Amino acid sequence: MTFMEHALAEAEKAGHRGEVPIGAVLVSGGLIIARDGNRTLELNDPTAHAEVLVIRAACAALKSQRIPACDLYVTLEPCAMCAAAISFARIRRLYYAAGDEKGGAVDHGGRFFSSPTCHHAPEIYAGIAEAPARHLLKEFFQGRRS
Amino acid sequence: MTFMEHALAEAEKAGHRGEVPIGAVLVSGGLIIARDGNRTLELNDPTAHAEVLVIRAACAALKSQRIPACDLYVTLEPCAMCAAAISFARIRRLYYAAGDEKGGAVDHGGRFFSSPTCHHAPEIYAGIAEAPARHLLKEFFQGRRS
Repeated sequence: MTFMEHALAEAEKAGHRGEVPIGAVLVSGGLIIARDGNRTLELNDPTAHAEVLVIRAACAALKSQRIPACDLYVTLEPCAMCAAAISFARIRRLYYAAGDEKGGAVDHGGRFFSSPTCHHAPEIYAGIAEAPARHLLKEFFQGRRS
Repeated sequence: MTFMEHALAEAEKAGHRGEVPIGAVLVSGGLIIARDGNRTLELNDPTAHAEVLVIRAACAALKSQRIPACDLYVTLEPCAMCAAAISFARIRRLYYAAGDEKGGAVDHGGRFFSSPTCHHAPEIYAGIAEAPARHLLKEFFQGRRS
């Protein structure tokens, strides 16, 4: 399984919990050190996006608010909140699957990493496993509508 | 004491803990329901800005990820992470003291609340108690340099 496939598995689990199916894993030295999916409903926490949860978990484990040797894999383009958290944590590389024209802040909206108030940007790789990530979200929202 | 003075007291306490002196309070129905200052160092959590901490605390207490009857008072202009969290939590009014041209995302940088990927913006009131908020930060950074 690739790291993005692990992130997709977390997204699927989030969907089964009734959360928007987005998942993330944080990788350091070739190992997954944190994995989670959205939990905003379960935790009554609007900041409990998959990215924030894995960053908080990894920083707690590594006892630092900066984790510059870590790479993040996430199934959807991060929003402004998560992009800024990625920047504050000094994450090295960001891999995301599907773009998010409604809420994304990497290649859409405020394009946080290109803004003058961003003081660290990761290397960015977009589009890996885009089709399955998008399929999960589409199925989820179609299921809610019907 | 005004609500912003309570936020300033939290900022001062954060400074005494060695954190960047920024404080916030969340108000509902004329009462403070959450108050805190930055704790990124103490918690090894890059997301532990004052705003995120009070939003998480209030949402947990009110058992909802949306708290539309709440107003946030914070001593510094929120960054992109906090601005997006304020939006997700559907906060009604944002009062901030000092502007932040280096990291702010309300009236600087990506101006999150005016971006096309922002789906809720609070009413915004800036500049209340700007002088004491700025003074606290200036003193803190001068102290660190010397």
